[in-house]
Amino acid sequence: MAKKDISYEALALHKKLKGKIRITPALKVRSRDDLSLIYTPGVAAVSSHLEKNPKDARDYSIKGKMIAVISDGSAVLGLGNIGAYGALPVMEGKAALFKTFADVDAFPIVLDTQDTEEIIETIARIAPAFGGINLEDFAAPKCFEIEERLKKMLDIPVMHDDQHGTAIAVLAGLINATKVTGKNLNRSRVTVSGVGAAGVAIIKLLKLYAPKIAIVAVDSVGVIWKGRKDLTPMKKKLIAGKIISSEQGGDLEMALTNADIFIGVSKAGVLKPHMIQRMNKKPIIFAMANPVPEILPGEAIKAGAAIVATGRSDFPNQINNSLVFPGIFRGALDNKVSAITDAMKTKAAKNLAAMVKKPTAQRIVPGPFDKGVAQAVARAIQ
Amino acid sequence: MAKKDISYEALALHKKLKGKIRITPALKVRSRDDLSLIYTPGVAAVSSHLEKNPKDARDYSIKGKMIAVISDGSAVLGLGNIGAYGALPVMEGKAALFKTFADVDAFPIVLDTQDTEEIIETIARIAPAFGGINLEDFAAPKCFEIEERLKKMLDIPVMHDDQHGTAIAVLAGLINATKVTGKNLNRSRVTVSGVGAAGVAIIKLLKLYAPKIAIVAVDSVGVIWKGRKDLTPMKKKLIAGKIISSEQGGDLEMALTNADIFIGVSKAGVLKPHMIQRMNKKPIIFAMANPVPEILPGEAIKAGAAIVATGRSDFPNQINNSLVFPGIFRGALDNKVSAITDAMKTKAAKNLAAMVKKPTAQRIVPGPFDKGVAQAVARAIQ
Repeated sequence: MAKKDISYEALALHKKLKGKIRITPALKVRSRDDLSLIYTPGVAAVSSHLEKNPKDARDYSIKGKMIAVISDGSAVLGLGNIGAYGALPVMEGKAALFKTFADVDAFPIVLDTQDTEEIIETIARIAPAFGGINLEDFAAPKCFEIEERLKKMLDIPVMHDDQHGTAIAVLAGLINATKVTGKNLNRSRVTVSGVGAAGVAIIKLLKLYAPKIAIVAVDSVGVIWKGRKDLTPMKKKLIAGKIISSEQGGDLEMALTNADIFIGVSKAGVLKPHMIQRMNKKPIIFAMANPVPEILPGEAIKAGAAIVATGRSDFPNQINNSLVFPGIFRGALDNKVSAITDAMKTKAAKNLAAMVKKPTAQRIVPGPFDKGVAQAVARAIQ
Repeated sequence: MAKKDISYEALALHKKLKGKIRITPALKVRSRDDLSLIYTPGVAAVSSHLEKNPKDARDYSIKGKMIAVISDGSAVLGLGNIGAYGALPVMEGKAALFKTFADVDAFPIVLDTQDTEEIIETIARIAPAFGGINLEDFAAPKCFEIEERLKKMLDIPVMHDDQHGTAIAVLAGLINATKVTGKNLNRSRVTVSGVGAAGVAIIKLLKLYAPKIAIVAVDSVGVIWKGRKDLTPMKKKLIAGKIISSEQGGDLEMALTNADIFIGVSKAGVLKPHMIQRMNKKPIIFAMANPVPEILPGEAIKAGAAIVATGRSDFPNQINNSLVFPGIFRGALDNKVSAITDAMKTKAAKNLAAMVKKPTAQRIVPGPFDKGVAQAVARAIQ
């Protein structure tokens, strides 16, 4: 299907549906007796109970089931800052996927503000009805502060999916890709292109999983190293914490020389075939820029790539956070966890990787419709 | 069913349900093709369209269907200020009723703040995903300011249901009660007991519908009149606008002498039989305090009341805003109105009254499960 056709078809479908989710009562309300149980006067007993025992809200209200999918529309898909109304169809779609893949009830909220303080206070104020917060498509670097501060303020899990959902999917893919190519992550050199929300989370999770891994990070200026004066606080932290190698500068091509793995969460076409040729044997290429990857799979293979993954459904090895977020929040709700920890994230990646019994170059991750994916991820969240 | 049994049964049911609403995708997502239409890459076309044409959100997103039911829990049922968690089961119940009675999708939001400014800014910031805002159980007098200011800020209908839903139901009931008793509202003397959210809205709507009506308002101190020094701005406005008679003070008993109609939105038991005996012939008694009315129907009838209505489902003539709010927002969504006007409210009351073909003392309003009620109200909202 050509891109133009998909656009036309998607617009027509959305106009027909008028929104991709519906609200359904959990039970049919048929009589005055039903009314008096779910509404006045019966509901008063439940309200009084929750006033005195707010912790029981997870057992007596939608807080036990409901996730908020929240965005300010500042960094949506490949479209950039398209605001609340632009973001709404994406958040609705995500809510539909939550239900489809993991039977999680999720509701989309889009914010008419892009101010960090206003975002944080607004989300905290509407949190009581929710059992978890999926932050979505907030731009870097504010996404880091928003997530960190909300995690401290709230007693429900808060996860910026563009960071951690993506990082977990990438780690799962790498676990199997290194198995297929006979590499060991702890002895691998990884170049990450793109140091936004996803890039930072990927770097951190890889280092956590394989402490001896060597990571070089490259942003739009070049290699992130200690000699640069233009670094954001988060990039400085990566250097200070020795999460990335930062002794010398250079460009993407230099960073890829003798690298084992390329992870792209950056821009269409930045990876050229001759750069792949400078990499170590059996190079692994994750080119995940959306919708057009850093290099097309055919070109990468021709240049010697052993394994290629993208974010797209029309090529093999789709590394997509839809493999991850439904299971993360399914597990969080089932086990009433108050935060998604690092240990849970690496466990989730391992469980996801294990869903592919015999990984091959063409199949390092399961497909989103494979049975048991969300459940495998959910088992890690406890 | 004894009250204790209902409480026990309601608690058990709520624990079993874990929340009274569910999210359902508007279409089954079965394949990668479905995914690519409702999510990436197809959704990008819809997002880009809405970025450029935010007004089209009502046609392409849940904004065309979704109402927010929002509370800060400061004045819930007869329970008072029970906070966000206490309010949540009520808001969920209301969302379930929206769907049951008018096929309106509604989502409950409870706020972890009771500060007027914070409430207003929070609701304004989460408004983009919604086609209307049902404010619920906000205490007076802040409820007046919250509603007024949000109406000015937003281009979707904002309605405080405790005010206007109740007022519309009361006016509908009075239209039929005066028909049954041969009274004329424009020549009637009405005493309103309770001048909170509901009382103020009832007074205003009655005056609007029947400009020559005489209304005396009584709060917990006594008759509201120009000699009092303790009046809130809203009560002063009622005097300044000549909405109520304010030449002389007194107590409820004095206010009821020669009155035709008693409207109670105040406290259990404040209306005594001997007060009814001081009223004009064929007195009409609306005793709507919840859960225990200002006087029990049996007592009122014994004291000479021609018609008695309450807010309860276990007596005849239940004056309940569940007759009103589903239809109001059904009509608002269908006709894409940006505000609920006074003219719409009186029309809604007339349409609701007309649902009872032959009113009697035992039946001045339809029941909530009667067919066509929401549709009749909805036809007024355009």
